[in-house]
Amino acid sequence: MPLLVVGTLGLDSVETPSERRENVLGGSAVYFSYAASYFTSVKLVGVAGDDWPAEYTALLESRQIDMRGVQIVPGGRTFRWRGRYRANMNDRDSLETQLNVIAKFDPVLPEEHRRCPFLFLANGPTELQHKILDQCSGATLRVADTMELWIRTQPERLAELLKRIDGLVMNDSEARLLSGQENLVAAGHSIRQMGPRFVVIKKGEHGAMFFSKHETYVLPAYPTPRVVDPTGAGDSFAGGMMGYLAEQGNFEPGTLKEAMAYGILVASFTVEDFSLDRLKRIERDDLQHRMEEYRKMLSF
Amino acid sequence: MPLLVVGTLGLDSVETPSERRENVLGGSAVYFSYAASYFTSVKLVGVAGDDWPAEYTALLESRQIDMRGVQIVPGGRTFRWRGRYRANMNDRDSLETQLNVIAKFDPVLPEEHRRCPFLFLANGPTELQHKILDQCSGATLRVADTMELWIRTQPERLAELLKRIDGLVMNDSEARLLSGQENLVAAGHSIRQMGPRFVVIKKGEHGAMFFSKHETYVLPAYPTPRVVDPTGAGDSFAGGMMGYLAEQGNFEPGTLKEAMAYGILVASFTVEDFSLDRLKRIERDDLQHRMEEYRKMLSF
Repeated sequence: MPLLVVGTLGLDSVETPSERRENVLGGSAVYFSYAASYFTSVKLVGVAGDDWPAEYTALLESRQIDMRGVQIVPGGRTFRWRGRYRANMNDRDSLETQLNVIAKFDPVLPEEHRRCPFLFLANGPTELQHKILDQCSGATLRVADTMELWIRTQPERLAELLKRIDGLVMNDSEARLLSGQENLVAAGHSIRQMGPRFVVIKKGEHGAMFFSKHETYVLPAYPTPRVVDPTGAGDSFAGGMMGYLAEQGNFEPGTLKEAMAYGILVASFTVEDFSLDRLKRIERDDLQHRMEEYRKMLSF
Repeated sequence: MPLLVVGTLGLDSVETPSERRENVLGGSAVYFSYAASYFTSVKLVGVAGDDWPAEYTALLESRQIDMRGVQIVPGGRTFRWRGRYRANMNDRDSLETQLNVIAKFDPVLPEEHRRCPFLFLANGPTELQHKILDQCSGATLRVADTMELWIRTQPERLAELLKRIDGLVMNDSEARLLSGQENLVAAGHSIRQMGPRFVVIKKGEHGAMFFSKHETYVLPAYPTPRVVDPTGAGDSFAGGMMGYLAEQGNFEPGTLKEAMAYGILVASFTVEDFSLDRLKRIERDDLQHRMEEYRKMLSF
């Protein structure tokens, strides 16, 4: 089934302890879409300035990602993020975040987009996430991501959002901030009680946790010795997870767990190079092969 | 098969964000032995001062732990450790470590102890670990733990130790320090090349990783919402792991992975209360029950 994602298209500048890249392709909806494209057809909704290279659009279209929902604002500047990773490659400092054109993005979705059964609200302004939900009232599965900025600046609107979605995906520090709980198991269930039927907490190099009324589990990350740039790992995780759910057309407990595993595996490729460079070199078969290793790793 | 452990008997003073305990039962060999006692018969070798409460010896004996290798030094003081956990309950500050009687411990093992086929050198002075290896030259499986203090102060003797053992167990920050590698997968394999046939890196609330020539895997921690005091989790992990290997009487790859899982599960109980208080309330059946949940959690 088709999958709609709304989020940022970005130009990222990244410093790691050994390398740096300027203005490379990034953004939550971009990583998400590319990851999901291994599994299902994706419609990307977002906005960019006229500094957005046409080759990036072409790259995403080469993965059959529907880019008709992407608006290019003449004279506008694309969302930009600059970050620096610490030596452990898991912690990072955001040096600069320019919302630019996404700050005033007010999309009106075409009818075909509104009817998309699977919906993901990638990281972006909470108000924008509400606007999309207003237009996609018939979606079968509505999942959102959020981040510290919105938890701190828009707590009431975020609380309302949590009551309108089926699932929430966020990282560990955000879960602690939102719940006020240090223990992640307690945090997950506490956030679940704020509205969503399930909550996923991403732990970076330590994998991801899942919480629903009847289930609590954690799956480890795939142990890759080659971590070049973790940017986009969380969005790729969400893309792999939602892409697989959309492909399967359901979100039964068993499908959700498989989807979590696919999310973890797509993310494990993402971190092996800058931007989308590693994903550009893999196909679904590579995911399948790593999935076999992953299942074997967890069997005893 | 019987299992011999050499390490500390300790009196711990622990502060968590919400509670504190003074001079409670602790020490690497104590946590290890109690955890291993669910699986096999354990011989504990260690030393204490005459401040060591006789009831602690009785408690360990009630688990069929052979305490004949424990020396009580008249007028001596038992090893003491004082630590404070940070809000996340994973990081801690060691406020005080008094080696006391263990600093000069120079055991001569009885013949029956020397013939023990499974040997664990729990956290303690590297020189003491060498002395035990000298006496147990016929052991089938020799595994050691180490920590920052010995990595920093006795690097040459530790390097020699690594060439004399089959397995090394250590935590993530120690693995980074010993290998000089930030990535834990790279660190694990780099340490393996220093001598041991397998390396286990403990990641606290994030589980544990295993490295041998042909295998790399990670198993997550059991997600408990109740983390009261993480002290002894790493030693309990090692006790559960080695206890299971000794019970099975082999260390084939499949047995090693099951042993890792048992280690993780014993540790998940240890952290649910101070000192050995939680372990005192469980039996092997409770471990078995949690193992079923854990296997289910990792199946998809």
